[in-house]
Amino acid sequence: MTSSTVAKGRVQSIANHLASKDTPDHEKYRVHRKPGQVPYHTPLDPIHFLLRSAMVYRNKTAVIHGDRSFDYETLADRALRLANLLIHGFDVHPGDRVAILCQNIPAFLEAKYAVPAAGAVMVPLNTRLAGPEIEYVVKHSGASVLLVQDDLLPRVSAGVKEAVKMIHVADYQNHGDPPCQYEQLLQNTKTVLGWNDLPLTTDENALISINYTSGSTGKPKGVMASFRGCYMMAVGMCVQAHLTPETVYLWTLPMFHCNGWNFPWALVAVGATQVMLNKLDYTYIWKLIKELGITHYCGAPTVQNEICHHKDAVRPNHTVLAFSGGAPLAPKIIRGLGDLNIYLTQVYGLTETYGPCVLTYDKGSLTQYPEDQHLRLVARQGYNIITQDEVRVLDQQTAKDVVADGMQIGEICLVGNVTMLGYYNDPEETKRCFREGVFWSGDLAVRHPDGVIEIVDRSKDVIVSGGENISSIEVENTIVAMEEVFECAIIAGPDEKWGERPFAYVIVREGRTITAEAIIAHCRKNLAGYKCPAKVTFVDSIPKTR
Amino acid sequence: MTSSTVAKGRVQSIANHLASKDTPDHEKYRVHRKPGQVPYHTPLDPIHFLLRSAMVYRNKTAVIHGDRSFDYETLADRALRLANLLIHGFDVHPGDRVAILCQNIPAFLEAKYAVPAAGAVMVPLNTRLAGPEIEYVVKHSGASVLLVQDDLLPRVSAGVKEAVKMIHVADYQNHGDPPCQYEQLLQNTKTVLGWNDLPLTTDENALISINYTSGSTGKPKGVMASFRGCYMMAVGMCVQAHLTPETVYLWTLPMFHCNGWNFPWALVAVGATQVMLNKLDYTYIWKLIKELGITHYCGAPTVQNEICHHKDAVRPNHTVLAFSGGAPLAPKIIRGLGDLNIYLTQVYGLTETYGPCVLTYDKGSLTQYPEDQHLRLVARQGYNIITQDEVRVLDQQTAKDVVADGMQIGEICLVGNVTMLGYYNDPEETKRCFREGVFWSGDLAVRHPDGVIEIVDRSKDVIVSGGENISSIEVENTIVAMEEVFECAIIAGPDEKWGERPFAYVIVREGRTITAEAIIAHCRKNLAGYKCPAKVTFVDSIPKTR
Repeated sequence: MTSSTVAKGRVQSIANHLASKDTPDHEKYRVHRKPGQVPYHTPLDPIHFLLRSAMVYRNKTAVIHGDRSFDYETLADRALRLANLLIHGFDVHPGDRVAILCQNIPAFLEAKYAVPAAGAVMVPLNTRLAGPEIEYVVKHSGASVLLVQDDLLPRVSAGVKEAVKMIHVADYQNHGDPPCQYEQLLQNTKTVLGWNDLPLTTDENALISINYTSGSTGKPKGVMASFRGCYMMAVGMCVQAHLTPETVYLWTLPMFHCNGWNFPWALVAVGATQVMLNKLDYTYIWKLIKELGITHYCGAPTVQNEICHHKDAVRPNHTVLAFSGGAPLAPKIIRGLGDLNIYLTQVYGLTETYGPCVLTYDKGSLTQYPEDQHLRLVARQGYNIITQDEVRVLDQQTAKDVVADGMQIGEICLVGNVTMLGYYNDPEETKRCFREGVFWSGDLAVRHPDGVIEIVDRSKDVIVSGGENISSIEVENTIVAMEEVFECAIIAGPDEKWGERPFAYVIVREGRTITAEAIIAHCRKNLAGYKCPAKVTFVDSIPKTR
Repeated sequence: MTSSTVAKGRVQSIANHLASKDTPDHEKYRVHRKPGQVPYHTPLDPIHFLLRSAMVYRNKTAVIHGDRSFDYETLADRALRLANLLIHGFDVHPGDRVAILCQNIPAFLEAKYAVPAAGAVMVPLNTRLAGPEIEYVVKHSGASVLLVQDDLLPRVSAGVKEAVKMIHVADYQNHGDPPCQYEQLLQNTKTVLGWNDLPLTTDENALISINYTSGSTGKPKGVMASFRGCYMMAVGMCVQAHLTPETVYLWTLPMFHCNGWNFPWALVAVGATQVMLNKLDYTYIWKLIKELGITHYCGAPTVQNEICHHKDAVRPNHTVLAFSGGAPLAPKIIRGLGDLNIYLTQVYGLTETYGPCVLTYDKGSLTQYPEDQHLRLVARQGYNIITQDEVRVLDQQTAKDVVADGMQIGEICLVGNVTMLGYYNDPEETKRCFREGVFWSGDLAVRHPDGVIEIVDRSKDVIVSGGENISSIEVENTIVAMEEVFECAIIAGPDEKWGERPFAYVIVREGRTITAEAIIAHCRKNLAGYKCPAKVTFVDSIPKTR
């Protein structure tokens, strides 16, 4: 769409708007068919979920944030205002990039609908990035607008400030009084363009977002997600996470991670309630689980660990479904959560696959696996989700499937509708990761005789010592199995003789003590000698840079 | 695909097969990427659900029929055998039509995968049709093969027998002993072609089935369903019916009706268990609800009514979700079922929309509506399902939306991914029902100020009896074909059990005589039993108010 056709469209839209001030409700949320569009085809586009839910679940609570909450009608209205604001207040045109540097606050959710509705492409930024990293991503994506949360402003460099127009949003949970710039702008924005007037996509394979991810190859890469991909991942999550209108979802997962695993769209599709959360305060999390009846949450192993072992942890009456991703989870945490009526599904995925495209057994399966050994398998084995086509394990040299013997290690490769379009402005990396017609994840797995794959390691977590591969996670799990240990991280330490050796960083459980010797002795008992840590360091916290 | 390329492909496949007798499990269920296929696109195709579930839910019970039952691995194996049988034993080529005249037996479910896997198009036949009607559909569709259940063989005319090759299948529930022709053929079929060798579609918009339906215009019309449509409807049903691996579905709905509302694919997608049922024996149904822990079923109001009021009805400990479609349900039945822990969702749809594309409020909402008045509204008001784009109510003259005042009546119109491709070999009817870019259902509704639609009536020329559509014109034409009859009008008469039944008003030709019995006997010979008039009244004139 050229600027002149957009401008023409706007004049027409404004005329339409003035002509019919009292748009009936069902007309408000309609996107008219395009001339020549066949009746049996609508582009797969997650924005449609909001338009439907604004009708079906109009007065149902869509969002809770602290003591603020609003319904679906309001969510749709706010998203529409933001789309209008971007177009008329920030000169956003179709194809422009809009960066977002926010924690899990309502504005982020609103942007998930408003940015693509304005025809623009979202660029969610990892809130943990440092100033220069943010500048790299903003400039690489060519974003012209940045929606930034006040607390994160110090991370925005002078270079970024020159390159973009900014919208400032506060993290307030108190009914928005006094209103921040974002709220003021929203309130003052006239919805001159209705949903139907906005440049919504007509091509389901078009770009909806660029999600930057740090691979093992240096600078972050811009993963390109499509409308079809996000739609298919969202319905996949609806089915695999058993989402219903009764779902109350807690945002422990950062919304910038793979578009929040597409939950911002999946939850709206089913008319669920989303509870915003922008700080991992576990006392507060347990309060929310109890008081709001949280039914679902997602999080990394460290989140699961903290929830499992928190002093306020009490088994709620209702079942909570939790998804854990990022790294395999220790069996004892899976069992500990089960005791708390929290059923855990272990997932595997990458930004390149819209988040979790492989998952382990469903709720209920764990009861068949009472033993540690089985829990370990359940935690690490998986299949493609229903809307992803295939997960394969290919030999890195020959690109042939590995022998399904549970032994031969290969690289996890993925294909299907929830696989990215490629890396933004990086044809070389795109070509490299898409060789032989599949996406090469960089992560390692074996395939068992029954077809299940078992993730062996994130490739960057592999320590190579004297020609032997060591899974850092295997060593971590061994050490965490000790009662005295709260958390553990294994890294590859340098070693003159062996190249690399595992170095352990250990947080001791409060009120307990343990020695380095005891930990090494425990490892020697449970692991091959070369896998045992060469060095143990006791620390108070472990940096989460993954 | 031409025959010669298919033949070539087969030779290659057989060579492949012989070369690798021990295909590893994960390879068995793979469909290889096509040359040039991008990694991020897989055609939406419900066959993929079976290939995935054969891996993920391998030894989980897929099908129960009487005292037979088998797992997902077996279901996939049987479907693969049937596909091979169709190709090698019955000379089925891509694009050929395969008709199915079966009740809800495993062979029907197997055909839902095997026929499209063989590249052919399914033509499910209504088991209640009379001989001449079956002949019309078989000939109109040009089917070359008929999968027919023994009990229904008397309905197959000499004309049909000449036109098709038949596969006979028995309705046995006793481990298949002695095996019927179908079972013998399956057992003797070599799976020379694996899933990857079969001519699976590469075009998601291709034709998967032709479902004949009686509209208001006489002869049945062949509704064309696409792979994409069936996939989208199946995931829509997964979400809207809250299907999970724990689901135990009872087949009270005929599988020939709109492809069983796409449940044959939805249930396999989530790894649920399907309980076959080919006779509506309510004592047996209650036994199954109790003994097998049925969690879901679908059915016409007459089915709901019988289940509600049966002498064995006892509130089970678990909640059952029921979908009711075909006609609005009396509030007292909705409440009665609620008392039995059966939560009812009222649905609206047509064969042209893959089954239920509009539904009422979700489980749980009924508790807000204790009064008859509210129940009545809940039973008749609805919204589009999440995978259908729009439901509109348009004025029949102007094709503009009706005023949303709950008063102005218009025709229900639908668009989106679960709308049919058109009528098979009937461009004129296709054009007529698709005017103004939407599908015109023929049914009437109003729109309320809050956007909800309320169905006012099925189009006046359609009589709905026990969930079956009856074209009054088809019955009229059948009766008028009798020499003794001068004119005939069919109207919907009230019926306590079936909701409606056809009542005939007949003017006898001058100088001739005929009895009501003779007219009914003539109808029974030419029409499905449910279409035959319940009452014949002889009159001197018929008012022309239409």
